[in-house]
Amino acid sequence: MATASPARSSTSVRPADPLNRETPAAALRHGLVTANADFYVRNHFAIPELDAGRWRVRIGGLVKRPLRLGRQDLLELPARSDMVTLECAGNGRSQLRPPVAGEQWGLGAVGTAEWTGVPLVDLLDQAGLRFGAKEVLFRGADGFERSLTVEEARDPGILLAYAMNGRPLPAKHGSPLRVIVPGWYAVADVKWLVDVEVVGNSFSGHFQTSRYIYEWERAGEVAREPVRRQRVRALITEPTSGDLLNAGALAVRGLAWSGVAPVARVEVSVNGEAWRAARLLGHPCGHCWQRWELTVRAGRPGWTTIRARATDAAGRTQPGRAEWNRLGYGINPIQEVSVRVE
Amino acid sequence: MATASPARSSTSVRPADPLNRETPAAALRHGLVTANADFYVRNHFAIPELDAGRWRVRIGGLVKRPLRLGRQDLLELPARSDMVTLECAGNGRSQLRPPVAGEQWGLGAVGTAEWTGVPLVDLLDQAGLRFGAKEVLFRGADGFERSLTVEEARDPGILLAYAMNGRPLPAKHGSPLRVIVPGWYAVADVKWLVDVEVVGNSFSGHFQTSRYIYEWERAGEVAREPVRRQRVRALITEPTSGDLLNAGALAVRGLAWSGVAPVARVEVSVNGEAWRAARLLGHPCGHCWQRWELTVRAGRPGWTTIRARATDAAGRTQPGRAEWNRLGYGINPIQEVSVRVE
Repeated sequence: MATASPARSSTSVRPADPLNRETPAAALRHGLVTANADFYVRNHFAIPELDAGRWRVRIGGLVKRPLRLGRQDLLELPARSDMVTLECAGNGRSQLRPPVAGEQWGLGAVGTAEWTGVPLVDLLDQAGLRFGAKEVLFRGADGFERSLTVEEARDPGILLAYAMNGRPLPAKHGSPLRVIVPGWYAVADVKWLVDVEVVGNSFSGHFQTSRYIYEWERAGEVAREPVRRQRVRALITEPTSGDLLNAGALAVRGLAWSGVAPVARVEVSVNGEAWRAARLLGHPCGHCWQRWELTVRAGRPGWTTIRARATDAAGRTQPGRAEWNRLGYGINPIQEVSVRVE
Repeated sequence: MATASPARSSTSVRPADPLNRETPAAALRHGLVTANADFYVRNHFAIPELDAGRWRVRIGGLVKRPLRLGRQDLLELPARSDMVTLECAGNGRSQLRPPVAGEQWGLGAVGTAEWTGVPLVDLLDQAGLRFGAKEVLFRGADGFERSLTVEEARDPGILLAYAMNGRPLPAKHGSPLRVIVPGWYAVADVKWLVDVEVVGNSFSGHFQTSRYIYEWERAGEVAREPVRRQRVRALITEPTSGDLLNAGALAVRGLAWSGVAPVARVEVSVNGEAWRAARLLGHPCGHCWQRWELTVRAGRPGWTTIRARATDAAGRTQPGRAEWNRLGYGINPIQEVSVRVE
C-alpha cells in the first residue's frame, strides 16, 4: 500500500553511539502502551556500564539528612506506577525550514509506558531541605546533568523509576534508575541516575543553558526561553502518507497529548475543508496521551490531504507552521498526511 | 535470600505442547502491566499454524447479514483499548487437598495487558441477530469452543482483540484474533478465533459442559455450576515465602482483583493477629487488578506468617481454606507467605 510520500519526511534517526532511535510508526497504532523494545531512545553519550549491585543514588547537598540508596533500598520504599508519555524536545525537528543542526527526528521521538518507582518528593522530605535550597540537580552516570527548581521538583507525580511496563528498566532507558517528570519534554528525565543534589543557586550546566533552550531573534535581539513542558500535539497514526485508498469512508486515527493540560479536542480537516471534531477515546489519564478517531470521506480520486489539530484545556493549540527556533525544539505544527484515492 | 519455602508450592507449570507456562513471580512485582513475553500461557492444543493473509473470522448462524472479516477489515473498524486482567480458572489448583487432576498451577496463571480490538457488540449489531438467537459460540482454529449467552455477549467491554500491550497479538496468545471477556476466567477468551456463530440452543461442547464446571458432592448428589467470573483474590508479591528478613518494618505488597465488582479492601494479618487494612494504590480501572501495600512489624526472630485477604464491593471475600471441587477451579483461599526473621 505505501508508496513514496510527498508530505512526510522519511527521516528516522538511527545512529549507533550514542544510541538514538525512533519508535516505529507501526508501534503507535494500537492502544496507549509502547512496548519497551519499540520505545524511542535518545541518549547524549554512550550507555554507562554500571554494576547494579554496587550502584547507589545519593541525595545530598542542602539537605539535613543525606541519603545513599541502593536498588534494594528503593524497592522497599512505597512505590507508585503511572502511565506517562515521554517526548524528546527535538521530536519533529526534521520538518524545520530552514533546517537546523541536531538529530533529524521525524515524528517518532515519543512513546508511553507504565513507569514504576519512588516519588521524588518522598525522598526530598526524608532528606529534609535546608535553608537556601533553590534547585534540585540530577546527574546521570553518563555525565548528563539537568535541574528543576525546588517547587517543580516537589510535584508529587515525579518518579525515580526502576521499572518500565512491568519489567526492570532496560539499560538503554536508564537502568537502574531514571527520573520521570510527567508533562515535561524528556530532557528532564535523567537516566542512570547517581546524584540528586540540592543546590542554592541556579544551575548553569551545558544542557541547562546552552542546549534545550528556545532561541530566536526578535527585533534584532536574541530571545531565549528554557524548554520545559510538552507542547500540545496530535499525531496521525492512520492513514500513513502515501497510502493508496479506495474512495469513500476513511478512518482517521491518532494520538494526542499536552504537557500543560488535558487534551480538550482534536479536529480533522480534509483537503482544507472545515475542521470537524474527532472522537476522543477512553479517559484522560494525567500525563498519558489519548487516542482519537474520526471517519471522513476520502474525496475524489487523486491526492487527499488530511490534517489533525489538538487543543488542550488551557486553550493552547498547534500552529499551522512550525515555529522556527535556532536549536529546533518544541516543533508541533499541525500534521498533514497525504494519501492517494483511487 | 530465598530458601526452601514451607508454605508455598514451588509448582510452576511448563510442559511444551500444549504450551502452558506461568507468569514469573518477578514479573508481577512492578506496576500493573505484564509484558507479553512474561504473560502466562494456557493452551489446550498445539498452536495452530495460520496464514495471517488468508485468515478470516466469520460471524454467522442466526444473523441477518453474515460477516467475513480479515485482519485489515478489523483494523479499519472503531477500536478500543482496555487494561484487563486474565486469570486461568485453574490458577492455584496445586494447593488443593486432596489433589485433583489437571495442570498443577501455582499462583502465576494470571496477568494483565492492554488489549486493543473491536467491541464484539459492534459486530453483532452489524450482523443483526435473528429471532431465536440464544447463545454466541466462539470457535478457535485449534478446535476449542466456548459460548456466552446473547445477553452476556452484548457486554460492551468484550473485545475481539488483535493487539496486546501495543504490539500485534503474539501467536501463543491467539494471533491474529482473540476474544477478551473482562472479568471472566480466561477460558472464555477463545484464541485463534475463526468462527462466531449465533445459535438457538444451549451449547454443550466438551469445554462448556464437561470441563470448566464447579463439581462437588452435596448430600450424596453431584452439584454442578459453570465457571464464569473471576473470584476475588489478593496475591502477595512481596515478600516471598522463605525470604530471610531483618526484624522491624516490613513492606507487604501485592495485587488484588475480582471479576464481580471492584476491590473494596485488602487486609493483612501477621502471625494470626487482627486484620489490618492495606492501602489500595491508584484507582480501580474496570477489570484490571489493583496494587496494595501495608507496612507491618515482622515480629520476633523465627518464622513469621503473613496473610492477605481481599473483599470486593459486592461483599465477596476469600475463604480461609480452598473450596475443594472435583476439577479444581476458582481456587482462591487466603494466601499465606512465611518468612524467616533474623
